[in-house]
Amino acid sequence: MLKEAIYHRPSNQYAYSYDQETLHLMIQTKQGDMDQVELIYGDPNETVDKRWNYHILAMEKSGRTTMFDYWKCTVKPKYRRLRYGFRLTDQDGQVTFYVERGFYSALPTDLNAYFSFPYLHTIDTFTAPRWVKDTVWYQIFPERFANGDANLNPLNTLAWGSAPPTPENMFGGDFQGIINQLDYLETLGITGIYLCPIFKAHSNHKYDTIDYMKIDPQFGDEQTFRKLIEACHNRGMRVILDAVFNHCGYYFEPFQDLLTNGEESKYKEWFYVGEFPIRFTPIPNYATFGFVSTMPKLNTGNIEVKSYLLKVARYWVEAFDIDGWRLDVANEVDHAFWREFRLVVKSIKPEAYILGEIWHDSMPWLQGEQFDAVMNYPFAYASINFFAKRTINVFEFTDYITQVLHMYPDNVNEYAFNILDSHDTARIMTLADNKIDRIRLLYLFQLSFVGTPCLYYGDEIGMRGGNDPECRACMEWDQAKQNGDLFAFVKQLIQMRKEIPAFGNDARFKFLQIDQLLNTVVYEKKNEKGHLIFVLNNSEEFQTIDLSLLAGKQATELFGRETSVFSSKTEITLNPLDFKCFQVK
Amino acid sequence: MLKEAIYHRPSNQYAYSYDQETLHLMIQTKQGDMDQVELIYGDPNETVDKRWNYHILAMEKSGRTTMFDYWKCTVKPKYRRLRYGFRLTDQDGQVTFYVERGFYSALPTDLNAYFSFPYLHTIDTFTAPRWVKDTVWYQIFPERFANGDANLNPLNTLAWGSAPPTPENMFGGDFQGIINQLDYLETLGITGIYLCPIFKAHSNHKYDTIDYMKIDPQFGDEQTFRKLIEACHNRGMRVILDAVFNHCGYYFEPFQDLLTNGEESKYKEWFYVGEFPIRFTPIPNYATFGFVSTMPKLNTGNIEVKSYLLKVARYWVEAFDIDGWRLDVANEVDHAFWREFRLVVKSIKPEAYILGEIWHDSMPWLQGEQFDAVMNYPFAYASINFFAKRTINVFEFTDYITQVLHMYPDNVNEYAFNILDSHDTARIMTLADNKIDRIRLLYLFQLSFVGTPCLYYGDEIGMRGGNDPECRACMEWDQAKQNGDLFAFVKQLIQMRKEIPAFGNDARFKFLQIDQLLNTVVYEKKNEKGHLIFVLNNSEEFQTIDLSLLAGKQATELFGRETSVFSSKTEITLNPLDFKCFQVK
Repeated sequence: MLKEAIYHRPSNQYAYSYDQETLHLMIQTKQGDMDQVELIYGDPNETVDKRWNYHILAMEKSGRTTMFDYWKCTVKPKYRRLRYGFRLTDQDGQVTFYVERGFYSALPTDLNAYFSFPYLHTIDTFTAPRWVKDTVWYQIFPERFANGDANLNPLNTLAWGSAPPTPENMFGGDFQGIINQLDYLETLGITGIYLCPIFKAHSNHKYDTIDYMKIDPQFGDEQTFRKLIEACHNRGMRVILDAVFNHCGYYFEPFQDLLTNGEESKYKEWFYVGEFPIRFTPIPNYATFGFVSTMPKLNTGNIEVKSYLLKVARYWVEAFDIDGWRLDVANEVDHAFWREFRLVVKSIKPEAYILGEIWHDSMPWLQGEQFDAVMNYPFAYASINFFAKRTINVFEFTDYITQVLHMYPDNVNEYAFNILDSHDTARIMTLADNKIDRIRLLYLFQLSFVGTPCLYYGDEIGMRGGNDPECRACMEWDQAKQNGDLFAFVKQLIQMRKEIPAFGNDARFKFLQIDQLLNTVVYEKKNEKGHLIFVLNNSEEFQTIDLSLLAGKQATELFGRETSVFSSKTEITLNPLDFKCFQVK
Repeated sequence: MLKEAIYHRPSNQYAYSYDQETLHLMIQTKQGDMDQVELIYGDPNETVDKRWNYHILAMEKSGRTTMFDYWKCTVKPKYRRLRYGFRLTDQDGQVTFYVERGFYSALPTDLNAYFSFPYLHTIDTFTAPRWVKDTVWYQIFPERFANGDANLNPLNTLAWGSAPPTPENMFGGDFQGIINQLDYLETLGITGIYLCPIFKAHSNHKYDTIDYMKIDPQFGDEQTFRKLIEACHNRGMRVILDAVFNHCGYYFEPFQDLLTNGEESKYKEWFYVGEFPIRFTPIPNYATFGFVSTMPKLNTGNIEVKSYLLKVARYWVEAFDIDGWRLDVANEVDHAFWREFRLVVKSIKPEAYILGEIWHDSMPWLQGEQFDAVMNYPFAYASINFFAKRTINVFEFTDYITQVLHMYPDNVNEYAFNILDSHDTARIMTLADNKIDRIRLLYLFQLSFVGTPCLYYGDEIGMRGGNDPECRACMEWDQAKQNGDLFAFVKQLIQMRKEIPAFGNDARFKFLQIDQLLNTVVYEKKNEKGHLIFVLNNSEEFQTIDLSLLAGKQATELFGRETSVFSSKTEITLNPLDFKCFQVK
């Protein structure tokens, strides 16, 4: 038994309240080491014949990587308190007890030696808005989605799609354009829109805010924005906005005041200025986003800045009924600010969604009192590199995805914002070397995964583009230039996600078979209502895959609509880069 | 290299801001596995010749247990942002890089693969009041410390010390008694008093509060309490009170109202009532502390309860200038409540100390936005079982203490409330089977350890007592019955802690030598101002201990006041259960 590999600590994904009556426990052991892991648990105060009244529960192996096995179980403690430990039985039958004080050869008698989950509090339970679970998101970069009102075109606006995107050029995308295309989005099956920044700003991307209380006139006015929100709500679509609170733009009034008045500026404390006079080169002598001098970092610890930004957070929810916020560079803003931000936003609209942009491990922001979700870049990394770029092998892929699923609590994973690309990355079609078969696998995986998927505008019709600014091209509205097959496939997947039990969010995901030689993956989605087996051939060859796990079962293949009865000989052959999804009866 | 044993995650004790410009990083590896561990780090945006401008820093082995080595280092990131990974070199010279995305054989080029500490924010940095670091605490159980005003004696008060303590009897301890004995405490060197509950309550222990806004008349009135606080402050002593917010007493008015009016009570939501009518047996059908029907659990998620308790928290600080709160059963109250509690208390007195009673792993409460410290029961467990009860061996002891030091950030450890016993446990003298030599080792260890030590009233003069209620006997004021030698020794240790550089809190603790056969321990305390080597013989035999680590050095033994020059032959012989402390020149 490799004790050094065993990990549990009563917090984060290892011990948490899943809902107001359920606790989840998880423990990590070395891969293949344990034959059985059981939870020993009970109320710390409940006795039988003056001895602790404990129970034993077998834990389930929820995932395995090259290095570790993960074991999970669920407990509903009657009195909301839990004292617990683990009984570990290795492959040789050796038994060890693991508790907070360490390893024991027999069950410790001192209850203080055990792990403690002191009390299950509803108020401390991570709770994201329920509607998010069923949402399929669509990210829109407003300047490039659709131009619906030429009167608003800024100076030097180019004809739609007439030039490649540059850091500076403008094409006149606006709210009316989005309104005009809501039919398109509804047809695709979209139920949530994430809008990149819309506030008054200098650039085409609007991440350099000038005024957080004003809509940029090139997108429309408040009336049109309200019309957009209402039109979306009428179709059952939600809309979230981009909150760029880490930094402001160069032309933000307080920063201009600082430039003008220097040390005498009343906004001096709004920024982190190392010394006066202000200097821009070689690097700014005030804190910035990256070293970008035109994006000064806001001091969110300052009471005036905080109250200004919280006013902004409140205003757009209260006055326009937006459905939440996506928080730009969220991890460089202090936790104290985000805690207040959540209280303010949820006090106005308890069902608002708070989504942070964090590319890294985000556990500190996902404890329940800050964000509802983060943009799932680790998911994107694994999926893109396996299916599109083909730079990682099937073990690396499944290891990574298994880790992604075991790095957060289940209720966090169910609300994760699963992206494949964004305005900050190259587009999937370009990453996949323009191979549509790879994109189909990618979308199949994304849309059958746990969490809430987000499509980047235009990907669904095969748009291409490298890193920023290439990925920000004008949406292709010429149907002749759209990939209609891809659109139809994505639409089908979205529909399946919504209609087929266990395809969507409320089902457990688990890898069942991995074959490095064949480059194939089999995984299941399962809940009380359904059981699906996905078989993916990620190789460029025909591959014959053993499916004896379905032996004796009847299953319908969902894409071909054929029903198979698996006899004792159960293998299937898949075309290169093809896939199947069996709905088990 | 045992990769399964390697653990790091960028939060908790593994990555944190120590102060407003310093980050601490820590990683765990298998014991003895690595020859060298280095941090690869830099600002995520800083480049040199278009490549990441990273630095390399050797990490120091800060502790080792039977299973693990712990490595630490300190970084002051110029721009407050940090991207980092680890270069691990094992005993065979094999090199591996460990980053957020896993293990690599070469330095990853993708910066997103690395660990991220996105931004060092002062407001998110764990910060406890500085004065606590130098405080030596004394815990007083008010009913049993000193009777200074016989007029306040409750009905059936017994003559001081005339009977063993029972769950019900009364001896008339009060505020005036404490005031009268402040000379005694000052002589001992005490600089902080932790008072068990003083609010109106039914029992002698007062953990069953009737009115949180009133002092129990058996202890005195508000005037006497104010006099006590002022007298303490005049002597440079702080006073903290016990906040029993998890549950109230049976006679608390809202609970009485609930009993009277049942479902119609306006206080119905103040408690967790499963069903009406209220039932007390076989177990209460409302939530309680343990299953104690007379201690109903308060619903701290309820807005009225919260605002009432926060009013209490505010009142005693504002009106009486108390120096902080010790929070009873702190881990069964919700985190959301404690976050607000901290904001309220610190808004009135930023230097107030917030100390939670938690017997278990307390990391979730020690993130900076809830508590300043918890009662360090894990420290007590290891110390008591090694020195007093002798139920664990020297490896178990040093493993456990090393883990205690590596389970929290350094700035948390420096404020830990290090107890040996309390009103909830047997007294140390009884646990040590009345062997004073064991008690001396115990006190030496406690008073030279990192954190802030707390003595339980009467221990310093050798009082005995088993578990509650025995440990709550009347303080022995008859000098003939006090152990004067022990008092003098504790007084000496407190003085040394205050006066000798590195003896106290601001020095790093590290075990240097452990000998299981001899049952001896050598540890050091070290900072820029001093270097101390402690040699403890925990066996009942004479033991000769190799001290070649002092070879060629000159050192003064602090208890014997003799100066030794260590030649090449450097061993010392210690009497049974004796100790030395060498101040290295």
